[in-house]
Amino acid sequence: MMRPRREGEFFDVLETRDAEAREEALMASLSAHVGQARAQAPYYARVLQHVEPDQVASRAALAALPLTRKSDLVTLQAGRPPFGELIAIPPGRLARIFVSPGPIYDPEAPGRDFFRFARALFATGLRSGQILHNTFAYHFTPAGAMMESGARALGCAVVPAGPGNLETQARAIAHLRSHCYAGTPDFLKSIIEKGEELGLDLSTLRRGHVTGGAYTQALRAWYADRGFTVLQSYGTADLGLVAYESEAREGMILDEHVLVEIVRPGTGEPLPDGEVGEVVVTLLVPEYPLIRFATGDLSAVLPGQSPCGRSNMRIRGWMGRADQAAKVKGMFVRPEQIADLARRFPAVGRMRLVIDRPGEADRMTLRAEAATTDAMLAQRLAETLQSVTKLRGEVTLVPPGSLPNDGRVIEDLRKVE
Amino acid sequence: MMRPRREGEFFDVLETRDAEAREEALMASLSAHVGQARAQAPYYARVLQHVEPDQVASRAALAALPLTRKSDLVTLQAGRPPFGELIAIPPGRLARIFVSPGPIYDPEAPGRDFFRFARALFATGLRSGQILHNTFAYHFTPAGAMMESGARALGCAVVPAGPGNLETQARAIAHLRSHCYAGTPDFLKSIIEKGEELGLDLSTLRRGHVTGGAYTQALRAWYADRGFTVLQSYGTADLGLVAYESEAREGMILDEHVLVEIVRPGTGEPLPDGEVGEVVVTLLVPEYPLIRFATGDLSAVLPGQSPCGRSNMRIRGWMGRADQAAKVKGMFVRPEQIADLARRFPAVGRMRLVIDRPGEADRMTLRAEAATTDAMLAQRLAETLQSVTKLRGEVTLVPPGSLPNDGRVIEDLRKVE
Repeated sequence: MMRPRREGEFFDVLETRDAEAREEALMASLSAHVGQARAQAPYYARVLQHVEPDQVASRAALAALPLTRKSDLVTLQAGRPPFGELIAIPPGRLARIFVSPGPIYDPEAPGRDFFRFARALFATGLRSGQILHNTFAYHFTPAGAMMESGARALGCAVVPAGPGNLETQARAIAHLRSHCYAGTPDFLKSIIEKGEELGLDLSTLRRGHVTGGAYTQALRAWYADRGFTVLQSYGTADLGLVAYESEAREGMILDEHVLVEIVRPGTGEPLPDGEVGEVVVTLLVPEYPLIRFATGDLSAVLPGQSPCGRSNMRIRGWMGRADQAAKVKGMFVRPEQIADLARRFPAVGRMRLVIDRPGEADRMTLRAEAATTDAMLAQRLAETLQSVTKLRGEVTLVPPGSLPNDGRVIEDLRKVE
Repeated sequence: MMRPRREGEFFDVLETRDAEAREEALMASLSAHVGQARAQAPYYARVLQHVEPDQVASRAALAALPLTRKSDLVTLQAGRPPFGELIAIPPGRLARIFVSPGPIYDPEAPGRDFFRFARALFATGLRSGQILHNTFAYHFTPAGAMMESGARALGCAVVPAGPGNLETQARAIAHLRSHCYAGTPDFLKSIIEKGEELGLDLSTLRRGHVTGGAYTQALRAWYADRGFTVLQSYGTADLGLVAYESEAREGMILDEHVLVEIVRPGTGEPLPDGEVGEVVVTLLVPEYPLIRFATGDLSAVLPGQSPCGRSNMRIRGWMGRADQAAKVKGMFVRPEQIADLARRFPAVGRMRLVIDRPGEADRMTLRAEAATTDAMLAQRLAETLQSVTKLRGEVTLVPPGSLPNDGRVIEDLRKVE
């Protein structure tokens, strides 16, 4: 059901573009972007050396490009400091440089709202001339700066509060009559409760933009019961904004400067819409041209279009981590190996390697969806599993559609030692 | 001794202006500034209502304007939130709002380098295209943002490190090959020592800009011995930059957008050059037009001109706190009262009220510089002291010039209970 659009309801005209017009514009950007990345970032000159940029003008062509894994950034950056030759401008010409755990160094180029959070904050209801109370940390991590730049681009004042100091937080909101909160999903509740305890008037604060933690149904209900509009977004330290909620609260709508693929964990193969897999993002930002950046996060495409009027593709938000490597009898088993197995058995549906330890030894059981209960198929699967992983495992055939759609390829049931 | 000026040695042409040209420009700005403050900030419309802005075009006219004390900001802001009507734009049109202990709310207006630290960082040797490692905090306090805006205005990249995480600090500097440190005077030493302990190459980092703590002779020597150029500045959360060191290391040179007076503590009376007194600053910034802002800090004018070629007035840096109110026998004695006493005895030099507690009772002794040892003078002083403070005190006459030039008007020798 489409509701009527109000004046000023959207951040820009890109959000409500016709889906075909968007796709055409994105694909044109993509091919220029690949050419520019190859020309200006030595890493891409190497990994894309055999790629003809003009040919990269479709989703299928994109899906043929190599992945760059977030988990490889530490090694890439350590090998060719400071940024593994993935950036297209000299480090001293950046605006800010952040340090994420790893360490991974995250660049921010100069200019207005590099991380593009203005769009997400606008969807949360933040408007020019309002005050954003920003409780994300600014030290080393980019979260604080991301929200601040977004709010400044909207023409808002920002209180760089950072985390902690609950009483100061509540008193500052009361004194400044701030309009919107930014921070983790639970901290706003703590501030509101502290304000009530201190008898403060926090009535100007009716909205919150949250990310960086689980936004549970219980928290949603708590805020909704009190009349707060609290919406979330999904982003990473490298990419900035990837997707955001609107008041429709139906999944998260993609930012207009990213291309998102959901791939089979451990591979670069795009999955059908609705399947849970790893989030792979191509960032159409010239200074940090991440191409097929495998985030290690799980999500799924949510088919259809948001009733709020924004026409971009939607994803279901963060659904866990995709890097499911497990050590079995001293050897690593990786999602890539299960994906390899799946490719050799196209008739088999989802596969899930379950690891447990019933006695003193690790045990692997491959659960595979098949329309048949053919013992020969199970035996061939077991043989291939052993040749791929160098480990012996049992095989259980299960009916098609009976394994959960949760992106899990390897499930480790052993107790943590 | 003037050394030859090199190309690009100064931040701008303002720094090397002829002293008369500067004074003329500042006085012209001052009168426009007073007019604008009266028109746009309701607080100044009230406190300057009988002032004719055109007449405020000299140091003497400035000295006749009322002080606004930093120690009154808490009350002013609480009474008329959020900024006591001292700011000239709506709060939601600010860039950032900080919260200093008090609480005092500090505004930052939009635009390039509102707090004007680019000048100080340039004098420290930071140059376009370099990387600043910024260990000042960003949360609530403006210190981190002040340094960052200054460095960005110079065209530098900033690592918003914040305080803490010593190992991450050292590793980030080694990895990013950062050029300059910003932070408290002692923390750089800790980082360098941590880097040595970890065997890191921190050789790109040769400069530091420090403030917010005692920069002792021992620390200066430690850095100098190792070939570091570490220079300090003096500023406050409300004013931003007030004065900064150059490589000449002769006092601190004033920023080009402030007027500084050194006044007798507790009064608005300017002291002769060289006398230690309270730093009173008029900030020639339209959005936050602080006029005769009494900082509560002590300093003194350092006569003469810096050999580095910068021609502005110099001060000796932070020399302690000016707010010396003390409780004697349950009643407050304030510097204002001693200043009142001094005005009634123009023939007397410096005065210093010493408070101790030899037995079980507080004792006040007024030490006053006089060319005579006349017992009548001592008696009249004692009587006036009692009428001003409502407390009985002894008087000791001492030779002219024998009291230290340290800005102390009230000295409390009692042990802290």
